[in-house]
Amino acid sequence: MRRLGVLGSTGSVGEQTLAVAALHPERFDVVALAAGANVARLAEQVERFRPEIVSVASEEGARWLGERVGPGVEIVVGAPGLETVATHEADLVMAALVGAVGLAPTLAAVRAGRDVALANKEVMVMAGALVRREVSARGTALLPVDSEHSAIFQALAGQRVEDVSRLILTCSGGPFRDAEAWPAERLADASLEQALAHPNWKMGDKITIDSATLMNKGLEVIEARWLFDVPADRIEVVVHPQSIVHSLVEYRDTSVMAQLGLPDMRVPIAVALAHPERLALDAPRLDLAAIGQLDFEAPDRERFPALELAYRALEGSEAAPAVLNAANEVGVAAFLAQQIPFGALAETNRAVLEAHLADCRGARVESLEDIMEADRWARSRARACLGLDDRPVAAGEMA
Amino acid sequence: MRRLGVLGSTGSVGEQTLAVAALHPERFDVVALAAGANVARLAEQVERFRPEIVSVASEEGARWLGERVGPGVEIVVGAPGLETVATHEADLVMAALVGAVGLAPTLAAVRAGRDVALANKEVMVMAGALVRREVSARGTALLPVDSEHSAIFQALAGQRVEDVSRLILTCSGGPFRDAEAWPAERLADASLEQALAHPNWKMGDKITIDSATLMNKGLEVIEARWLFDVPADRIEVVVHPQSIVHSLVEYRDTSVMAQLGLPDMRVPIAVALAHPERLALDAPRLDLAAIGQLDFEAPDRERFPALELAYRALEGSEAAPAVLNAANEVGVAAFLAQQIPFGALAETNRAVLEAHLADCRGARVESLEDIMEADRWARSRARACLGLDDRPVAAGEMA
Repeated sequence: MRRLGVLGSTGSVGEQTLAVAALHPERFDVVALAAGANVARLAEQVERFRPEIVSVASEEGARWLGERVGPGVEIVVGAPGLETVATHEADLVMAALVGAVGLAPTLAAVRAGRDVALANKEVMVMAGALVRREVSARGTALLPVDSEHSAIFQALAGQRVEDVSRLILTCSGGPFRDAEAWPAERLADASLEQALAHPNWKMGDKITIDSATLMNKGLEVIEARWLFDVPADRIEVVVHPQSIVHSLVEYRDTSVMAQLGLPDMRVPIAVALAHPERLALDAPRLDLAAIGQLDFEAPDRERFPALELAYRALEGSEAAPAVLNAANEVGVAAFLAQQIPFGALAETNRAVLEAHLADCRGARVESLEDIMEADRWARSRARACLGLDDRPVAAGEMA
Repeated sequence: MRRLGVLGSTGSVGEQTLAVAALHPERFDVVALAAGANVARLAEQVERFRPEIVSVASEEGARWLGERVGPGVEIVVGAPGLETVATHEADLVMAALVGAVGLAPTLAAVRAGRDVALANKEVMVMAGALVRREVSARGTALLPVDSEHSAIFQALAGQRVEDVSRLILTCSGGPFRDAEAWPAERLADASLEQALAHPNWKMGDKITIDSATLMNKGLEVIEARWLFDVPADRIEVVVHPQSIVHSLVEYRDTSVMAQLGLPDMRVPIAVALAHPERLALDAPRLDLAAIGQLDFEAPDRERFPALELAYRALEGSEAAPAVLNAANEVGVAAFLAQQIPFGALAETNRAVLEAHLADCRGARVESLEDIMEADRWARSRARACLGLDDRPVAAGEMA
């Protein structure tokens, strides 16, 4: 019986994690849940799974929940409560919070020696160097839940990291993949509606815009570098519009291992929950003959500078990825509010990153506070670049 | 230092095995070699690798070799010599003989507790049930060298066999893949020249004809069933004309693992030699963006009955695969001699298999002699079906 904690239990990945765990009650005991404001849904989860401890965002939510679910479940509150849940005795903690709010509890779980299934992108994007050092020092497992990183994790099974020659992340290419339809000058003025028209699926607005700029893939390169402890010059991106091959690993004997499947987040969730075993899932099965064709092409680094910026951030400083991420969040928020043109996203990201590297090239981060400071600085700088008002934007607000 | 024996050292796989071993002299000590009539090449290998023991086919060859290489190397002869080499103290035996001649020494190596790298197709096609029982009883490793089976072996790394839902073998489809260009009635009269025109690469004549009928893939289904101890109803075939995805494994969480690469036999050889590690190889690397497109389609079981025959053999009796293989060898020899039309290959295979199953459905094999008896019976029956003279054709003669 694996004791499972879920941070962000009422979000999409949290809900699917509980659904997968519920399929196998003989294997998983859900012992800890953390949610935010959606206490009504959390109450249902508490009644269903009877965890030992739950956290909510507010005192008011905690009171309401306490009256609803009765005794037998410890209820804790706010950031300290979240950390209590994150470090509660468990075999695996699913880190499925969204945004920078997940950083501190995830790091706390690692420091408490917990294995962590990681769906919270910002953890490795913002604090990858720091988290990698903590994970390596403690020998805990970090199990990726993102589909690309889960693919790489699966393609590394039974292999030695020193035999890896390249990680190859696949990328759908987004709505502006076609260079003839979207030459650089037209792309710079792409409308919000055009940028939100992702060819393959419906996701949140922020990630859809990041898919249109390829910044999403840039952030995934950063995640991969720290998740797998592989230098950035061994991480590549290939465009694969059908999103069936989720990513690949090349070994030094030139053999390439790939993970394929229909897009379904329950699969990487199940992989992380059951590792090194596999859970039976009643998900749609891949039929390659029915799909017929898989296409691949090199990413266009001229029209999509986000990829290059991600590599520059990785080689620049340990805080640079957090800077790039923060500048990008400010830019995307402004683009979604139709305050800036599409082309300003890359320009701002580049300007803020360069300003950071002019002062901080090669710098290490020693603590979460170093990262949050870089994040705040980058948000302010990005707002200035974009000519926006300078109200403070909290880390993770975008998410 | 891994002590390595090579059966069939002067053949294509044998030569490439020695070439890979020679790249890593710090890891491999070549201690035993077995060749047939090519004693001149064997002498060069002996001088290069200084094995402890070698076997050759004839007394005359042994004398010549003894004079050429001098003392310090034990030279043994014929079938008993081959078995002595196969069971010589070693960590891994590469079984790279061609045809039925490899059956007895490979089984002897397994019975002596040796790990075996298996390139000799006929071993698992003819004697899969028997070899599987011996391997399972002794807990030795059986490492496939064929590219499809090596792909499956790699896609199984770090996984549990009980989590496998399907093995998916890829198949180029051969020269008659296009159903519009090659409707069934035209296919039945395909010429030798047309059948030998494989779209992707040059192989030996026998395997090229087997690729044209898809019997090669049928035999690989049989091999896969016994190599991986997976029931035939969990083994599927998908046509993939580019031969970049070498095969795939689907798990019960619907995740599919695949191995990809440019066709190069040194890769599966290196995988088998180094398992569970990887050897650096200076082989051409896969560039998916340069390849651009991978296609998949369902095999046409109407035009290519060989696949169905392979499944029927697997479910029919333990000797039935040897029967199908023997009938097919006789038919292909006759087709290569332009004695029979292309369409007679499938007809003969079906008739001989059905005659066998009419008498022997469900029968187990207890010994190699059971298998050789079935082989002889099937050859004679196939010759009768095809109206050929009834001179005896030895097992493995075709190969």
